[in-house]
Amino acid sequence: MAQDTYTKRLWLEEDLADDLKWSMLVKKVLYSGKSEYQEVDLIDVGPFGKTLFLDGKVQSSEVDEWVYHELLVHPAMVMHPNPKTVFICGGGEGATAREVLRHKSVEKVVMVDIDKVVCDFCHAHLEKNKAAFESSRLELINDDARTQLEAYPGKFDVIIGDLADPLDGGPCYQLYTQDFYQNVVLPKLNPGGIFITQSGPAGFLSCTEVFTCINATLRSVFPSVLPYAQHMPVFCDVWGWNMALTDASQAELSAEEMDRRLAERVQGSMGFLDGHTFKGLCHLNKVVRKCLEEEQQVYTADCGRFIHGKGQAAKPAENGSQQ
Amino acid sequence: MAQDTYTKRLWLEEDLADDLKWSMLVKKVLYSGKSEYQEVDLIDVGPFGKTLFLDGKVQSSEVDEWVYHELLVHPAMVMHPNPKTVFICGGGEGATAREVLRHKSVEKVVMVDIDKVVCDFCHAHLEKNKAAFESSRLELINDDARTQLEAYPGKFDVIIGDLADPLDGGPCYQLYTQDFYQNVVLPKLNPGGIFITQSGPAGFLSCTEVFTCINATLRSVFPSVLPYAQHMPVFCDVWGWNMALTDASQAELSAEEMDRRLAERVQGSMGFLDGHTFKGLCHLNKVVRKCLEEEQQVYTADCGRFIHGKGQAAKPAENGSQQ
Amino acid sequence: MAQDTYTKRLWLEEDLADDLKWSMLVKKVLYSGKSEYQEVDLIDVGPFGKTLFLDGKVQSSEVDEWVYHELLVHPAMVMHPNPKTVFICGGGEGATAREVLRHKSVEKVVMVDIDKVVCDFCHAHLEKNKAAFESSRLELINDDARTQLEAYPGKFDVIIGDLADPLDGGPCYQLYTQDFYQNVVLPKLNPGGIFITQSGPAGFLSCTEVFTCINATLRSVFPSVLPYAQHMPVFCDVWGWNMALTDASQAELSAEEMDRRLAERVQGSMGFLDGHTFKGLCHLNKVVRKCLEEEQQVYTADCGRFIHGKGQAAKPAENGSQQ
Amino acid sequence: MAQDTYTKRLWLEEDLADDLKWSMLVKKVLYSGKSEYQEVDLIDVGPFGKTLFLDGKVQSSEVDEWVYHELLVHPAMVMHPNPKTVFICGGGEGATAREVLRHKSVEKVVMVDIDKVVCDFCHAHLEKNKAAFESSRLELINDDARTQLEAYPGKFDVIIGDLADPLDGGPCYQLYTQDFYQNVVLPKLNPGGIFITQSGPAGFLSCTEVFTCINATLRSVFPSVLPYAQHMPVFCDVWGWNMALTDASQAELSAEEMDRRLAERVQGSMGFLDGHTFKGLCHLNKVVRKCLEEEQQVYTADCGRFIHGKGQAAKPAENGSQQ
Repeated sequence: MAQDTYTKRLWLEEDLADDLKWSMLVKKVLYSGKSEYQEVDLIDVGPFGKTLFLDGKVQSSEVDEWVYHELLVHPAMVMHPNPKTVFICGGGEGATAREVLRHKSVEKVVMVDIDKVVCDFCHAHLEKNKAAFESSRLELINDDARTQLEAYPGKFDVIIGDLADPLDGGPCYQLYTQDFYQNVVLPKLNPGGIFITQSGPAGFLSCTEVFTCINATLRSVFPSVLPYAQHMPVFCDVWGWNMALTDASQAELSAEEMDRRLAERVQGSMGFLDGHTFKGLCHLNKVVRKCLEEEQQVYTADCGRFIHGKGQAAKPAENGSQQ
Repeated sequence: MAQDTYTKRLWLEEDLADDLKWSMLVKKVLYSGKSEYQEVDLIDVGPFGKTLFLDGKVQSSEVDEWVYHELLVHPAMVMHPNPKTVFICGGGEGATAREVLRHKSVEKVVMVDIDKVVCDFCHAHLEKNKAAFESSRLELINDDARTQLEAYPGKFDVIIGDLADPLDGGPCYQLYTQDFYQNVVLPKLNPGGIFITQSGPAGFLSCTEVFTCINATLRSVFPSVLPYAQHMPVFCDVWGWNMALTDASQAELSAEEMDRRLAERVQGSMGFLDGHTFKGLCHLNKVVRKCLEEEQQVYTADCGRFIHGKGQAAKPAENGSQQ
Repeated sequence: MAQDTYTKRLWLEEDLADDLKWSMLVKKVLYSGKSEYQEVDLIDVGPFGKTLFLDGKVQSSEVDEWVYHELLVHPAMVMHPNPKTVFICGGGEGATAREVLRHKSVEKVVMVDIDKVVCDFCHAHLEKNKAAFESSRLELINDDARTQLEAYPGKFDVIIGDLADPLDGGPCYQLYTQDFYQNVVLPKLNPGGIFITQSGPAGFLSCTEVFTCINATLRSVFPSVLPYAQHMPVFCDVWGWNMALTDASQAELSAEEMDRRLAERVQGSMGFLDGHTFKGLCHLNKVVRKCLEEEQQVYTADCGRFIHGKGQAAKPAENGSQQ
Repeated sequence: MAQDTYTKRLWLEEDLADDLKWSMLVKKVLYSGKSEYQEVDLIDVGPFGKTLFLDGKVQSSEVDEWVYHELLVHPAMVMHPNPKTVFICGGGEGATAREVLRHKSVEKVVMVDIDKVVCDFCHAHLEKNKAAFESSRLELINDDARTQLEAYPGKFDVIIGDLADPLDGGPCYQLYTQDFYQNVVLPKLNPGGIFITQSGPAGFLSCTEVFTCINATLRSVFPSVLPYAQHMPVFCDVWGWNMALTDASQAELSAEEMDRRLAERVQGSMGFLDGHTFKGLCHLNKVVRKCLEEEQQVYTADCGRFIHGKGQAAKPAENGSQQ
């Protein structure tokens, strides 16, 4: 580096796997905080812009969080005929609530995130989500999501899981189990209700880490589960979601009808999602489909599966000898 | 790092952008060579296994090269009714020829790669591609691809571009221009012939680097162009291909017919590709479709477009204020 | 890295040479500022504690700045029989003034640093130097050091160069030239006056970058020049100083007399320096002594010498064949 | 990095402390091997040239190994009046034997290194040390140094410890204990014999890791111990040695007498060492001297002290408040 072009180089290094790491150039450390659960930082990094980190792990970035949250929220919301009440497990960043509140039909959003410090931090520093935090339709509770969902009077049209991946022994593992889905989520859905959860990496090399297990767990409880996936640059992988429907017929939405409902029900227009796009996301590739079919593991209360960085789901085709 | 778990840490660092880099743990430097054009290395790295580098840039890796080459070769080969002759621009690694030669209909493959050292290196060290290099159906020429394609007696059913991205002033730029497509490729295709080229990054943040320009350039020459994309882990992005057809009707292949042709015509089975998968790859998302529609730039002989790491194609939706 | 021990890893990366870099773990970015000349940051890093950076280059750190400043200031101050007036070229950090002001004999310190933003930043944030900035004996001027030294009414007992290394074309180069020493520094010293300057890396591999040239330049002007060196961890090298005396006999100070004067004249005690230590620092090794003897280059107004990271001053001994 | 100047960047990363690491650019991986004890590599790196690594830790580099080995071998050899027999504990690299064999008085060198693979590797690949490995005066034994020294018939004039640092539980710890010095080394020295050992980092921030403990341990056994230190670039720190003399009067060698003996007794000339240089190395600074004086820990058979990267030996002087 030529001396005359020298500028400070502060890098944020993240392990993608045991043997792969990446480093984002830090432009500015904007805000830092610490709760009893985790460190929270808003940092302007490399090509990703303002990026939220919890314990140094990327949560969402300016350049692609809108894609992630469109895909988490709107497919389920438009497949439901008329969602009025929504429960969000986690979601402390506020962006999930922001997208839900764009739906004119929504009367009540209950968001339960255990970490008040993170919620306050995001309320204060994420300008884009500020209005959502201050909406009269939002009820924000800082507590364990299961406890609150179980105790909450009444049922919901849509329940959204916006939680960290199910690490064995991790804080969110219990919110991905068969027991939770069977005994808490399903009973709390109104007839025709839909449950949607982020589901970790879903690439052909990584889908067996948690994506296929979440799918298998949901399939053991719900009559219909719709998996879909999209590459998220800031996660350096394809990301997956699983939508669980109490009424399987709702999944038969045409691209045109999805476009019509998005236009009719949602304030503003979508940046990434439309019916054609969603059809593509649901066409999973041969490797991932095979992994979904073959997955045996259901998350139960006493058995989880770690993400050790990236696993390897796909094997070279039988015609492929070693290089 | 605990002393007792210490092992040597040799990292291969690659710039993904000016402000983003990643590092792969080097398990073993297997072979290294140097031609008049470039350095060539086969290194066992991090989560990617045996990986081929040209001038330190990843070309292909054990864990995903089979996906890349299935997607480069087979869609075009099965859309063509009966491909007998194939011309490969570049392809020195040998894997493209390997996949082409799996088609029983193929009688002749001409592969023109400028770098003999790379070809010899890959012939010697990539076990998986060895048989292809030694096939009696393969004619390998080390020269400029344009010169050889122009001069070659006879025409081809399928022409494949397996070249480095079109950097302005780079060695491959001229093989992505309107002039090359109009005056060399098109005249050298038999009736019903198909041209397919790798087309660089095609993510919603990166597709305007070269992907949309290659598409626009091909559309200015061919009656029908089919773009598609798939995430490639070793390239840390979604990757794109553009297929240009002289007979637009060939693109109307159903998923079932694609599966039938793959089963019938190709030795062995596919690892990644099938008709359902390919339908998904062709369903590009709203952002990329919009970038394709709006792209004005056609590559001409005297105007290129750099890839400076990653550009940014997508902007947050209008409802998205700054975080 | 086990998920449960994960903490954020923000690294500050500094090039030590073209082919050697190091990375300090960032514990906290404390303060950041920007002047018309440079960026200024106070960052708590790795093993070095609170560290001051100018344009991302380490200036001084909590764990060793006290060593650097003891060695820059006190040897010259105690070799002078009774220093009352001191001029500091640069020194915006305030630590040089802090050490000078510990001398009871000092009546007036004039410190001229071009960058007011850096001075204000250090005044505000370096608690240890705060009292120095506020001393009634200090006159702080933000201007070019040469202009102010030339124009200043009266002469000085000790002049201290606390400037960045003399890069060709860099902002400080002119303050290391024969012309500056001959026509500005020497005329501004009282009889028996001493000039001391930091002199860049002085290791056996690095001493010819600037250390030996500064020495040669001073020797071309002053009757006696005393070079000495000490390893500075935060600079990742041995560091050098050159003391130029108008009265060569002052350099004959015994270790015991140095200890006596330090005890008598200075408030508080030294952490690193004493007479025995200083004797050691002046015993340069055979390689560095040879480089000093053989150095031909004198810095003149129109000729500099770059530091490109680290040069190589020493060659293996003649008995040493290649490994 | 401009695309046209791109070259492969393979970095060897070494932890210098938990929160400090450095990376050397790998020019070429020359040779790699693996023994039952460790990995051994000869790699051409960054500014250090051909560098020997054991388990990924730098052992010695082309640019400074000659300094290290001159300082390990010659001071003890010339302080002894007439060294004929020398025992080397460790030293598998061969450079210590190489320097010892330059002494014309030497009739017999016994070198005991546990790792035959390392010895063979260095014999084959370190051109500079080849003659030493093949000298008729060298007896090389691959075994535990203590076992062999105890069993060896006869005594030695000089015993040299060229071993890895004494990590608690590490393979070399037992060769730094009071028991080993008292019951093996001392009885095996001829009258007037000298023991010299490398002693780990000896900077003012790092000297208490092992340097001061080795010194204290030797002082508990020998009548006179002479510590000295020199910055070693490839170790990124000042390095220390401790010389233990059975005849304290031998340490009173003048610089002139050292120069005379070096010229008279040694083949070829020194690159780094002479009497003046050595005087400087023995003048340890105030911090290190204080740490030596205050050190209470003696290495006994059941108690060691880890090196966790760098510790911190020095505290800012009492006048130094926090920055």
